[in-house]
Amino acid sequence: MAPTIRTIGISNGGGDCPGLNAVIRGAVRASILGHGWRVVGINDGFDGLIWTDRTVPLTVESIAGILPRGGTILGTTNRGNPFRYEIEENGKKVIHDYSLICLENMRKLELDAMIAIGGDGTLTIARDLGKLGIPIVGVPKTIDNDLSATEVTFGFDTALHVATDAIDRLHTTAESHGRVMVIEVMGRDAGWIALHSGIAGGADVILLPEIPFTIETVCEYLRKRAATGKKFSMVVVAEGVKLPPLDPFGKPFPAPRPGQVGFLIGDAIHTLLKKDVRVTVLGHIQRGGSPSPFDRILATRFGVEAVELIARGEFGRMVCLRAGEIESVSLDEAVGETRLVDPQGSLVRTARAIGMNFGDYA
Amino acid sequence: MAPTIRTIGISNGGGDCPGLNAVIRGAVRASILGHGWRVVGINDGFDGLIWTDRTVPLTVESIAGILPRGGTILGTTNRGNPFRYEIEENGKKVIHDYSLICLENMRKLELDAMIAIGGDGTLTIARDLGKLGIPIVGVPKTIDNDLSATEVTFGFDTALHVATDAIDRLHTTAESHGRVMVIEVMGRDAGWIALHSGIAGGADVILLPEIPFTIETVCEYLRKRAATGKKFSMVVVAEGVKLPPLDPFGKPFPAPRPGQVGFLIGDAIHTLLKKDVRVTVLGHIQRGGSPSPFDRILATRFGVEAVELIARGEFGRMVCLRAGEIESVSLDEAVGETRLVDPQGSLVRTARAIGMNFGDYA
Amino acid sequence: MAPTIRTIGISNGGGDCPGLNAVIRGAVRASILGHGWRVVGINDGFDGLIWTDRTVPLTVESIAGILPRGGTILGTTNRGNPFRYEIEENGKKVIHDYSLICLENMRKLELDAMIAIGGDGTLTIARDLGKLGIPIVGVPKTIDNDLSATEVTFGFDTALHVATDAIDRLHTTAESHGRVMVIEVMGRDAGWIALHSGIAGGADVILLPEIPFTIETVCEYLRKRAATGKKFSMVVVAEGVKLPPLDPFGKPFPAPRPGQVGFLIGDAIHTLLKKDVRVTVLGHIQRGGSPSPFDRILATRFGVEAVELIARGEFGRMVCLRAGEIESVSLDEAVGETRLVDPQGSLVRTARAIGMNFGDYA
Amino acid sequence: MAPTIRTIGISNGGGDCPGLNAVIRGAVRASILGHGWRVVGINDGFDGLIWTDRTVPLTVESIAGILPRGGTILGTTNRGNPFRYEIEENGKKVIHDYSLICLENMRKLELDAMIAIGGDGTLTIARDLGKLGIPIVGVPKTIDNDLSATEVTFGFDTALHVATDAIDRLHTTAESHGRVMVIEVMGRDAGWIALHSGIAGGADVILLPEIPFTIETVCEYLRKRAATGKKFSMVVVAEGVKLPPLDPFGKPFPAPRPGQVGFLIGDAIHTLLKKDVRVTVLGHIQRGGSPSPFDRILATRFGVEAVELIARGEFGRMVCLRAGEIESVSLDEAVGETRLVDPQGSLVRTARAIGMNFGDYA
Repeated sequence: MAPTIRTIGISNGGGDCPGLNAVIRGAVRASILGHGWRVVGINDGFDGLIWTDRTVPLTVESIAGILPRGGTILGTTNRGNPFRYEIEENGKKVIHDYSLICLENMRKLELDAMIAIGGDGTLTIARDLGKLGIPIVGVPKTIDNDLSATEVTFGFDTALHVATDAIDRLHTTAESHGRVMVIEVMGRDAGWIALHSGIAGGADVILLPEIPFTIETVCEYLRKRAATGKKFSMVVVAEGVKLPPLDPFGKPFPAPRPGQVGFLIGDAIHTLLKKDVRVTVLGHIQRGGSPSPFDRILATRFGVEAVELIARGEFGRMVCLRAGEIESVSLDEAVGETRLVDPQGSLVRTARAIGMNFGDYA
Repeated sequence: MAPTIRTIGISNGGGDCPGLNAVIRGAVRASILGHGWRVVGINDGFDGLIWTDRTVPLTVESIAGILPRGGTILGTTNRGNPFRYEIEENGKKVIHDYSLICLENMRKLELDAMIAIGGDGTLTIARDLGKLGIPIVGVPKTIDNDLSATEVTFGFDTALHVATDAIDRLHTTAESHGRVMVIEVMGRDAGWIALHSGIAGGADVILLPEIPFTIETVCEYLRKRAATGKKFSMVVVAEGVKLPPLDPFGKPFPAPRPGQVGFLIGDAIHTLLKKDVRVTVLGHIQRGGSPSPFDRILATRFGVEAVELIARGEFGRMVCLRAGEIESVSLDEAVGETRLVDPQGSLVRTARAIGMNFGDYA
Repeated sequence: MAPTIRTIGISNGGGDCPGLNAVIRGAVRASILGHGWRVVGINDGFDGLIWTDRTVPLTVESIAGILPRGGTILGTTNRGNPFRYEIEENGKKVIHDYSLICLENMRKLELDAMIAIGGDGTLTIARDLGKLGIPIVGVPKTIDNDLSATEVTFGFDTALHVATDAIDRLHTTAESHGRVMVIEVMGRDAGWIALHSGIAGGADVILLPEIPFTIETVCEYLRKRAATGKKFSMVVVAEGVKLPPLDPFGKPFPAPRPGQVGFLIGDAIHTLLKKDVRVTVLGHIQRGGSPSPFDRILATRFGVEAVELIARGEFGRMVCLRAGEIESVSLDEAVGETRLVDPQGSLVRTARAIGMNFGDYA
Repeated sequence: MAPTIRTIGISNGGGDCPGLNAVIRGAVRASILGHGWRVVGINDGFDGLIWTDRTVPLTVESIAGILPRGGTILGTTNRGNPFRYEIEENGKKVIHDYSLICLENMRKLELDAMIAIGGDGTLTIARDLGKLGIPIVGVPKTIDNDLSATEVTFGFDTALHVATDAIDRLHTTAESHGRVMVIEVMGRDAGWIALHSGIAGGADVILLPEIPFTIETVCEYLRKRAATGKKFSMVVVAEGVKLPPLDPFGKPFPAPRPGQVGFLIGDAIHTLLKKDVRVTVLGHIQRGGSPSPFDRILATRFGVEAVELIARGEFGRMVCLRAGEIESVSLDEAVGETRLVDPQGSLVRTARAIGMNFGDYA
């Protein structure tokens, strides 16, 4: 039976992602206009449930104009997990379980249900808070698009725009100079952004965490390209690629710091090919800016569906997209399952069919 | 059994659509690099099969750089249907059946198979040429996204970007002026662009060909909005909406010329509301410009799959997207089936849930 | 001698213009961080000085994030001129002089000086209030770029981006169809946007308020173009062009409503040329959206200089740009002087040199 | 007296720059349509004058559509200076003077005059070839905008767009995370892009080659910002900044490789502030893509004026922009003069007025 809801809370945790504001707007408008509920914004992720002074009322008026804006109107900088909250006491780190405080604060704040927007970490906590009795639903957020329970998440399409636009721009420059251009894009565990932007941008080589490669194979391919008169080459690298064990000098590659894997690969290519190599590191600009139409629509649908899950009393579930339809899945099933690029999948095959190289011997 | 292919032809017909070049590039590269075929570009749609002097060899080199470009490198301006080709002879229109000439010219041009990219009209001809014995496969092209055999076609996402960007810009202006802004977007039979861009842009009213509306209902809603302190309103109109029978003066609406339906609706709102109304007609700018990453990837996959259909000898079929996967469907099934917005569908329901109005009494 | 300033007010009046927020931000930060003043935002243009309940404190915190945003954080919808303020009393229009009330309210609000951002109308009022004793400085705002006292104003470059992007998109579509594309851009008295976007977009014909033209001359040029194999043509029309006295049927053109002059010209071309013509009306999308870098920098410099004028006690002046430097000019000199396109000027000559046509017999 | 011109050549040398195609288009159209000349494109900079097989005829038709395109249709990859041309003979580098060959090839190619588009190096060679008797005029090209003879060059505005857009995107991300964001932009000798994009993007700290700074001063400023509740900071770094002698550990900074100065500064800030720092290196994406309207217009005017210089027989000169007007200057005066940011200039003062920091003790 559907519960009686008067007020719900919304929080978001983890990294920035274009579309967060669209989720919030969708949920707020559906709650207020569709159900007559009140909505409370919880700042700083789950930290906002450990203390009670971090809330802000969300109304149709207060959220006006946020749809096209990047970032989020709610603070996301949670320090940690309420079940294992680290604080410093007398110079020592102590771990507290604040989960029951969250439960109590929900009552103090008169929240009848919660919507938690976040990545795998946030959703795991949401699941556990749900088991403790908090009526909670989840909205998936991962710019890398690597959550297996949903076909696609908001933010990914916008990131793809930024990365593809950058590859387009590098192309016009590379053409007139006969250079190898290396561009490092996001993708810690999964290479979706590299694969999609590589195809959309017409890259020559795409290096993914999912496909082991060697610098030698990459260079062999680039040499062949040069032999057919192509003056330049474009190499897209996911930040999370696994470097081969040894660099071209036979020495181990250093463990790359953030933003440096593109430089290490660029150096190695330069060493082997004796060609001018330039490196671009897109970094966080892929996370910012106005969400694309696709991301706004998906995020709005997610926000509305999260409200409907609450209205139907289907707690402990996460909204998701499957075959173009908005559905839901239990948080238990959803968390911990990473969606990786399938090296034999249709998109990689399409890329190979048009002559792209993945640095492997396929 | 798969046929022996040495050379294929590619043509595109009908209106412009961002992604056409990406289809051509995908097909050319997959043919040459994957199968060792030659590829011939046929200009001017099927007209290019009626004469033999309109072809251009397509090579990996000749298509370099076309991926990000709008428009198409092949002429699309076909005059008509080879089965019923209208020409003027001695000042009179005469209709000829040139279909067998197409068949003969394919032999002269040594084409073993054809890829035809186009909308419903082009694909119907492709089907009929296929029945005549031409080994042909189709790639769907409709910027309105109204072909039922495929979930989505390339070009639609780019059109959505243009329309949403325009709505975003109108928003900042409308806010500071307390105006009603009317924006007319594409969509002759189906309101997909209006519906998607309306949700993505945060419109207040969306008028679609699929949902009958009255100006009075629209104005009633705009009045309510104004009563809650909203100074401005945004009305998105699909070019193909069916105007109500009578205008606010009780006179029949004139039959709108292209680009005028937005003005007629704007005038009627102005008459009833006595409010300043401004009209923007996006027109063909929605068809132009560099395709979005989504459209480039989809178009590339379509181009590659069309080649694979030929390689497998599966003629008379059209590539399509279903549940995120590239598949194919027989041209017989594909043509003539328009995909309309379902007034009870989940996207319309989402829009209503966040308070959008469709000018009906729902 | 420089006055003692503790608090200043800022208002903006008239139409929307990208960069307004950048002016406000520049003025607020320079006032607070540079001079230690307080700043008060006055909503609704000079209406905000007739009543005292329309102010909002502006602080470094409250304006955070407004730099890239279109529109303005201050209301602009002033109803009129404080010197001749029209109100309805008992169903009749009565005109009041509220200028002394403005003076009094400045004292009540403890404002030591005012910055007024606006077009010719707003600046004329500012000048007159200045003569009444209000310490006021002006910042010019005209998206049409038609104020003679400043070489360029903010907003113009952004409008140019929107118009040029639209022309680019129409080009890719026009190319594949052999059509005449007509695009109507802003420019009521002066054709700067049409001239600049026409050159930037590579238009074939540019029609300006400053250069009389005939449809026949335009068509003659388009016919010549077609004769040299050019399949399409692009005609950019300023909304404020003066239509020739008679249409191609020898009947007078109707007085065009806003957004209709492009259609009238398109129809006339169609009548004479018997060619497919498509019309796009950009309308207010040229006024919206995030300001370009150029506009943000110029607007910031204007806002800072307005503060410096106040600090130096130079009232009754307007900031302006001359030869790339920020200067100031007396409001007396600045108002009422429209900057028109010089038909013999270097930009028009450049356009003619590369073969563009202005519909005249030059 | 003006010379008789029948044919001119055009070449471009050095790095890529948005607007090169617009210069070429402007010059070609003005030559052909205005003067009836023939135009020959010379590939590979001055290398194209040392050999005679690198030319391409340029016609109104062959350049159609290049206006909005980044890059250049002419090869720019010249290997060197015709006066001191390095080639390998028998494994040794030998230097030849090929300048007289250039003169002779001009005659063989029947070129009556040359337009050379390029940076300081290219223009110096152009000057010297001019002294040898080649009728040559120059068009300045420097994306860093650091040539003193012209107020601004094409390409700079487009680069500014890319850099500002990136800063905007980083802002939305930085806001939600409390991070220090470092973004490295172009500017080897002069910090114009960093200064302009820093102001346009609302940066907190701007580090320029022209203003010596210390990491300690930067961190002091960032600490003060944090103390007033600002959770994040944005640091824009020109690639050519001079690093302070010692890093925070008192050790000398290593000599930065291209694309690494931002990382060195980011590391030093992290060391001192113990705050999360993220680095973005824009690199060559600032040089690519479609030129902005401003750049297209300026480039077109430059191309047309170069033709007019030739028509008037004013050789040995370079086109330039002064106070908004297209003028010319002798190549002798133009070359070798770098335009640096004036640390006391009005733009730096504006930046300081709104609270920006340059890492110095000003």
